[in-house]
Amino acid sequence: MSEHEISKAVVKRLPRYYRYLGDLLNANVERISSNELSRMMNVTASQIRQDLNNFGGFGQQGYGYNVKYLHGEIGKILGLDKSYNMVIVGGGHLGQALANYVNFEKRGFSIIGIFDINPAIKGKMVRQIPIRMTDELPAFLKENEIQIAALTLPKSGAEKVAPVLVENGVKAIWNFAHTDLHVPEDVVVENVHLSESLMQLSYDLNHRRVKE
Amino acid sequence: MSEHEISKAVVKRLPRYYRYLGDLLNANVERISSNELSRMMNVTASQIRQDLNNFGGFGQQGYGYNVKYLHGEIGKILGLDKSYNMVIVGGGHLGQALANYVNFEKRGFSIIGIFDINPAIKGKMVRQIPIRMTDELPAFLKENEIQIAALTLPKSGAEKVAPVLVENGVKAIWNFAHTDLHVPEDVVVENVHLSESLMQLSYDLNHRRVKE
Repeated sequence: MSEHEISKAVVKRLPRYYRYLGDLLNANVERISSNELSRMMNVTASQIRQDLNNFGGFGQQGYGYNVKYLHGEIGKILGLDKSYNMVIVGGGHLGQALANYVNFEKRGFSIIGIFDINPAIKGKMVRQIPIRMTDELPAFLKENEIQIAALTLPKSGAEKVAPVLVENGVKAIWNFAHTDLHVPEDVVVENVHLSESLMQLSYDLNHRRVKE
Repeated sequence: MSEHEISKAVVKRLPRYYRYLGDLLNANVERISSNELSRMMNVTASQIRQDLNNFGGFGQQGYGYNVKYLHGEIGKILGLDKSYNMVIVGGGHLGQALANYVNFEKRGFSIIGIFDINPAIKGKMVRQIPIRMTDELPAFLKENEIQIAALTLPKSGAEKVAPVLVENGVKAIWNFAHTDLHVPEDVVVENVHLSESLMQLSYDLNHRRVKE
């Protein structure tokens, strides 16, 4: 499998394939043609064939794709065959929303700590996880093997806490703060900038094709 | 201004320019060269020049960009010179997190209604907005001019509520539910699929350049 040649654009589309294949799997569908998948996903069949050919040999002429196999392979490429320990830094609504997503756990992402600086919510339980104070974070990171940290706190807090995470071996940061974090190159960051997403929507709203 | 020729890729980068220029504006910086902006944003200066040339004439040889002017022009292109009324459907943690983002209001996005199906939170106030029951939504949409709806509820609920929004004239949906909504082509949808974002992070974590 030549996964090292997969382009960023293809990788960005993989989670959506994974979601549709998961739905098919839940509906007990055994195999699917690129044409059927194309209709479901509203993507051209040729795009689908090109994307999935990156992983080689999943599809067979006249048979289509084996749903379970393809779902499993894409899952492996995305690293969903492993399990991860995760902390959430920022115990406000957004942090609690993430902590309540049971689907993350099903995919192998276990949230084992939630941290905040607000003493008023210290000890509050979110899905059996107590909210701890952020000054306990370094010790917690030393005692537990944490691969992923979600930052659901304001910009200034995120910039302060990122180096603490990096120093203590966290290699992946899921950043919801409105800032671009500066981290060493062996640390990966995925940004979710909600206000920028809202601006995209506003752009699209103002430039949409108006129905006659 | 030939804004109709702007590519999707450029548009996706505009909110980030807008954010950096806003920070410069707040710091009372009057003008900036593409080289300085390049260093700040960690993007090549040639990329910046290409992107901003789409709007024509912002930069001047030997002067650079006028921060206030450029910030204003990008804001206009993104539709931030207008104001919008917004509702949130789904009053759980994620919906409440969005309702608490004061920055949206500053950018012209006023959240004027929050809806949920859970009677236990009926009437609960979130930043002076009462949570209403979802069956009141059609009447609310008829009485108020709402341009944007954020869907922060599970997939099945989102699929049920989307047609109600469309029938009542909502033209922009900010969709956090893990499903691709099917809407008429004059309605725009911006998806924020958190679990797909986490999968991207997991991919990057497993394929990152490991430090020697």
